[in-house]
Amino acid sequence: MDDSKRPRIANVYRGTFIHSTQQTALQILEDELLGVDTDGKIAFTGRGVELDRLSQTFGFSPNEVIQLAQHEFFMPGLVDTHIHACQYSYAGTALDMPLLQWLKTYTFPVESHFKDLQFAHKVYSQVVHWLLKWVQVLSIDHRKPRLSCVALCKYDSLRFEKDNFGQRALVGKVCMDRNDSVKHYKETSQESQEETCRFIAELLKKKYPLVRPVVTPRFALSCTEALLGQLGAIAKNNNLHIQTVMAHGCYLSDEELVLFRETGASLAHCPNSNISLCSGMLNVRNVLNHKVKLGLGTDVAGGYSASMLDAVRRALDTSKVLTIQNPEYETLSFEEVFRLATLGGSQALSLDDQTGNFEVGKDFDALRVNVAAPGGPIDLFQGEDPKLYNYDTNGRFRFKVPS
Amino acid sequence: MDDSKRPRIANVYRGTFIHSTQQTALQILEDELLGVDTDGKIAFTGRGVELDRLSQTFGFSPNEVIQLAQHEFFMPGLVDTHIHACQYSYAGTALDMPLLQWLKTYTFPVESHFKDLQFAHKVYSQVVHWLLKWVQVLSIDHRKPRLSCVALCKYDSLRFEKDNFGQRALVGKVCMDRNDSVKHYKETSQESQEETCRFIAELLKKKYPLVRPVVTPRFALSCTEALLGQLGAIAKNNNLHIQTVMAHGCYLSDEELVLFRETGASLAHCPNSNISLCSGMLNVRNVLNHKVKLGLGTDVAGGYSASMLDAVRRALDTSKVLTIQNPEYETLSFEEVFRLATLGGSQALSLDDQTGNFEVGKDFDALRVNVAAPGGPIDLFQGEDPKLYNYDTNGRFRFKVPS
Ligand SMILES: [Zn+2]
Ligand SMILES: [Zn+2]
Repeated sequence: MDDSKRPRIANVYRGTFIHSTQQTALQILEDELLGVDTDGKIAFTGRGVELDRLSQTFGFSPNEVIQLAQHEFFMPGLVDTHIHACQYSYAGTALDMPLLQWLKTYTFPVESHFKDLQFAHKVYSQVVHWLLKWVQVLSIDHRKPRLSCVALCKYDSLRFEKDNFGQRALVGKVCMDRNDSVKHYKETSQESQEETCRFIAELLKKKYPLVRPVVTPRFALSCTEALLGQLGAIAKNNNLHIQTVMAHGCYLSDEELVLFRETGASLAHCPNSNISLCSGMLNVRNVLNHKVKLGLGTDVAGGYSASMLDAVRRALDTSKVLTIQNPEYETLSFEEVFRLATLGGSQALSLDDQTGNFEVGKDFDALRVNVAAPGGPIDLFQGEDPKLYNYDTNGRFRFKVPS
Repeated sequence: MDDSKRPRIANVYRGTFIHSTQQTALQILEDELLGVDTDGKIAFTGRGVELDRLSQTFGFSPNEVIQLAQHEFFMPGLVDTHIHACQYSYAGTALDMPLLQWLKTYTFPVESHFKDLQFAHKVYSQVVHWLLKWVQVLSIDHRKPRLSCVALCKYDSLRFEKDNFGQRALVGKVCMDRNDSVKHYKETSQESQEETCRFIAELLKKKYPLVRPVVTPRFALSCTEALLGQLGAIAKNNNLHIQTVMAHGCYLSDEELVLFRETGASLAHCPNSNISLCSGMLNVRNVLNHKVKLGLGTDVAGGYSASMLDAVRRALDTSKVLTIQNPEYETLSFEEVFRLATLGGSQALSLDDQTGNFEVGKDFDALRVNVAAPGGPIDLFQGEDPKLYNYDTNGRFRFKVPS
């Protein structure tokens, strides 16, 4: 390779990599090599036996390769496609109400309180802290590779000043110019529009590498048609995502799913929230059959857990319940749900040119997992007969869900 | 009180106690006093303001009272009414099979491997370890009061020699004299009967204060009628519980529930297992309306989680799904599920004379929970407006489910 074109390699890792591709829901690459360039992008991947050739091609020393331990692996950062940062302070409360009553009782009164900047600061920093904390439950060493989850946060204040701890995020200012349930908590269309523009400009000025603004009408019911049109124009002019509540698409008809595919709109499947608020159960198989882009979301605080591991488990639950109701229903496999939580999420957010799996050219957005970490949540049983153990003699982990 | 009749007080606690009674699903007693005698039994309870009177009546010094911190409370030990200790090694695997196929593929081959005592020892000690570990997830200081969960374990080996770490358990030797799917893994009726008797005699000889034997036909399908009759006689002669798979009572008719109530049989509701194996969903409201005794169970490894907190959440989920299917269904409240996980479980196991809540005369079988423990799973937000926070200004915790 021509030296001038060759990427400068910062780190090379060797070990087990687990990720998804369009063809394979769960691909386990053992004794794999992955090189990260000085921009944090994946410069190359290859088999361990190709070390000599790759080290010559990319100009790194085999001695500098970072070898994962037997019980470690890399997986792509998990993508939460839908979370309300400002609802985190009351997560877990009042799961005994349906959506609209819950919005009126908790959501709107609490959100209107975010003009108290001290309160806002406290909640927002705790959320990001927690998002990073729950991945540590996986026994992740988050100092080595850059740890980052993609989160689509909404908040109603402009002051997102904090260092984001390496947390990737698409953040929107929620717009609502129609609200009959909590009268004092709404804006005029003009306020929504102006605040959105101000928010976008301020956030872009900061040039955060991982945090980008999005345009956020709360949902159709809470916005006038005029405002929806204005927000659409803002998104178009600034080339920004639009985030709205497609999180509860449980009752979409086949015709509407076709419309989703044709327009490139995505769905965020938030099974915890859907069950907790008794909203319904999304037929994921039907969405996938319609080739609509689909990721998983926690939808805190409609969902009580900010953990994407919880979202994975609940997505499996919902699929199994649909099977109980109709034995002909093709249950999702955990491999498919793993793909939804990683590659699917990055596709749903149109970030799959940067994240979602370990393809060359993408950011090395990864979790380094050590299932044998002392004090970790996983008990390992290792032995010869794969039926008896969750770990076989080659140290290859077989699926086990921690509590 | 006559000094000779007065119980000798070992410890007196003062603070918040949370438990269930037959009348009240969740009772929060603030500034409560509770005295434990030297046998570990609850000698008295009372209001904090009654300290002087109680200290005179029961002969303890007010200075010795152990005061709980602001963010601490006591709750009764959680009762897992159905767990297979021997299935723990492969928890989380193969959730994509229905029950009978899963039994054939995993359960029977693994169980037959427990004649390897080293393997058995490893799995059993890890299980008990884990049962104690997940309660620590609640940030529990388990050194002070005696920590004990009631677990109904089954295992197929006699060698339960270990110190049980303070874990209360009813343990049975699984009997199966009919098994067409894994031919080499069954006993004759006589072997089942003899091994059961030997097991009971050996365990009783040890005089463990918290571990008792039970009689365990696996389930009706796997036992001949002759064996069921013999096991019934053994239970009757030794005054022992019978444990069998009433854990999946999803399809019981009203007539069968009446039979349950009349015979005093109990149901173990194992929602994780029921969903994971696509077995069905138990209509708990209907069971409660029939006044059948009901507790929660993890049913490891049909359920992938050995955590009773998971069982609580999944019980709520199932109830909410039944509401999605039929909006007339009266969803279980979390208070009711808390009662099922504590008092309900002890009633289901006929241990409610000893455990289940904080009534005088029962064992002080308790979890000491500190929701503000450093490094704990709960983020506290405290303030004046109860809508905004999961903790009000009186330090009273409002329900929040950690991940
Ligand atoms: Zn939402
Ligand atoms: Zn079972």
